[in-house]
Amino acid sequence: MSTTLVHRHKKLRRLLQEQNLDALALNPGPTLPYLTGLHFHLSERPVVVIFPRQGPLLIVLPELEAPKVENLPYEAISFPYEEDPTTWGNAFTAALALSGLLSARIGVEPRWLRVLELRYLEAAAPNAEFVPAESATAALRMFKDRDEIAAMQKAVDIAQAALEATLPAIRPGVTEREIAAELTTQLLRHGSSGAFPFHPIVSGGPNSANPHATPTDRPLQEGDLLVIDYGANVDGYFSDITRTFALGEVEAEYQHIAEIVLQANQAARAAAGPGVPAAEVDKAARQVIEKAGYGEYFTHRTGHGLGLEVHEEPYIRGDNQQVLQPGMTFTIEPGIYLRGRNGVRIEDDVVITADGCRSLTDLPRELRILPL
Amino acid sequence: MSTTLVHRHKKLRRLLQEQNLDALALNPGPTLPYLTGLHFHLSERPVVVIFPRQGPLLIVLPELEAPKVENLPYEAISFPYEEDPTTWGNAFTAALALSGLLSARIGVEPRWLRVLELRYLEAAAPNAEFVPAESATAALRMFKDRDEIAAMQKAVDIAQAALEATLPAIRPGVTEREIAAELTTQLLRHGSSGAFPFHPIVSGGPNSANPHATPTDRPLQEGDLLVIDYGANVDGYFSDITRTFALGEVEAEYQHIAEIVLQANQAARAAAGPGVPAAEVDKAARQVIEKAGYGEYFTHRTGHGLGLEVHEEPYIRGDNQQVLQPGMTFTIEPGIYLRGRNGVRIEDDVVITADGCRSLTDLPRELRILPL
Repeated sequence: MSTTLVHRHKKLRRLLQEQNLDALALNPGPTLPYLTGLHFHLSERPVVVIFPRQGPLLIVLPELEAPKVENLPYEAISFPYEEDPTTWGNAFTAALALSGLLSARIGVEPRWLRVLELRYLEAAAPNAEFVPAESATAALRMFKDRDEIAAMQKAVDIAQAALEATLPAIRPGVTEREIAAELTTQLLRHGSSGAFPFHPIVSGGPNSANPHATPTDRPLQEGDLLVIDYGANVDGYFSDITRTFALGEVEAEYQHIAEIVLQANQAARAAAGPGVPAAEVDKAARQVIEKAGYGEYFTHRTGHGLGLEVHEEPYIRGDNQQVLQPGMTFTIEPGIYLRGRNGVRIEDDVVITADGCRSLTDLPRELRILPL
Repeated sequence: MSTTLVHRHKKLRRLLQEQNLDALALNPGPTLPYLTGLHFHLSERPVVVIFPRQGPLLIVLPELEAPKVENLPYEAISFPYEEDPTTWGNAFTAALALSGLLSARIGVEPRWLRVLELRYLEAAAPNAEFVPAESATAALRMFKDRDEIAAMQKAVDIAQAALEATLPAIRPGVTEREIAAELTTQLLRHGSSGAFPFHPIVSGGPNSANPHATPTDRPLQEGDLLVIDYGANVDGYFSDITRTFALGEVEAEYQHIAEIVLQANQAARAAAGPGVPAAEVDKAARQVIEKAGYGEYFTHRTGHGLGLEVHEEPYIRGDNQQVLQPGMTFTIEPGIYLRGRNGVRIEDDVVITADGCRSLTDLPRELRILPL
């Protein structure tokens, strides 16, 4: 672990220099354990780790978390604070003052840093500038090493086995919520951490036409499509898989859109490879669906990066010219949603290799008809 | 539901006026469903709901989430944006322009609003001021109504039954991680939502002396104390319970600290009631532990508010003069942590009633010795 961290720190410091940043300030989110090996909850007690371009790391944290930062395999100074919130600002002030960052350009992660931490940082260094540094952290985390890909493969294997174990429980009369609970249980039983990427989406019938549905108490009915979108967590690395099922025989148009989405998924996987812009992968899927006349029913991007976050760089969007490179991992998940009726989505997790794209997922992609 | 929402909106608007705020801006967090009945994921796509002091709600959200905001039981205007992030700012600009909030004083929740949403809001209304509004949202959410307390009681009942069902699996040789997985499975089987308040803390032996430990692969040993801190979720409402167990016979001092923590827990529950400052409840627990000579080993506050967040107002801290009132719900969780050795914590969930304090939790609080 510690050589991995040393390597990541070196790379980060080079990126900070390139991007003209004096430091990076992180709160509890995926980049923090990635760069420090430390795990904290995101809570009302702020935890901030500051990486200056040189010198020791500065760690502001509650006194009761202090045992976690003893004997770290890198140089760090900690600034613990007591329970009384009126004293918390002092810890930030001490850290920023010691760091020489009082009027620095400090990178932050806009998707993670909250107004809570931002205001403490601003108060401690009123002349500093806090600017988005996603591109620096993405440039680190986007390239998965062998261990990271192995963890993701394990998260895929667990999720796939959990879904197969859940299928026997699915039949008309069972609710979306019941299926989601059974799937979650199976994820744990098969070895996922309980910190899931997200609560499973289990959406049947008309709900399947809502890409971001929440499981409801609606019982499944014969003739429903059923979309299951879920994932597992292994050492912080996520899988994110979607498959669509049919409860007995479904309308001919539903079978038709399932075939089109499958072709779109295949086209996108075939298009993905090193040197290819993300936009091309999106285009490959979208063209299949547009040609079939369902373009307006494919209402979202084709995929998103996957790793320590369930949505991260690279985003597989028509406007993203980011060039795919070996080690990048992302989802391919075209869908067709007939609003008020039913919907289909097929989602795989893939990794860019030296000569193409390998799918970590290998569950059948065809519309599987579940026995009634 | 809709009358509850109308009532909450009315109360919020009165609070905004009192606090000299022109609006409240919320992102996906517990206050958003509390005030709108809407559920969104916190993701890289910003969702912001703005409540002006009068007039319709303004909802900025991704196009693919638009089905969620149709036919709302209150006045709202939505500003959906497409997939291309370069266009997202336009939706914010349109919402803020229409609202007449361009140079307003807008309340935000620092624990929830991220730099992501803040920067979009600031760009859309450069002359507006974004100020902490926790006291307004806390003043709403701190007072639980009958339905909310019923949900919390159910979350307690589920969690208690799940722990009892997990105990038979606990014996020397089983790891903390295995126990955490079994407990999580039991929580789901007993009816908890999979959106847990937090991943269970299962800490044995020396790990039990770290109040915020993460489950490890350390196998339990005879003579260990075992701290289990976990909770369930029912309709978004959490329980948060801790009990401490002994694996066979433990050191006399461990039995002694378990008795002191139990007395501290009892003293705090006896002290809590309407009209009592939160600080007095903390003091009641702390005095017991200090008198026994373990003051320096009780390293955290006595408790925290509980509801739609696992930590919320009122905080049960020595410096908090907040007066407790009927309907307030919080934890009472004194502990003693002998660093490098073992630790004990006993946590109950309580509600302030007209004449005292009622514990929602009723699992035995004594140090339970598990058979080897």
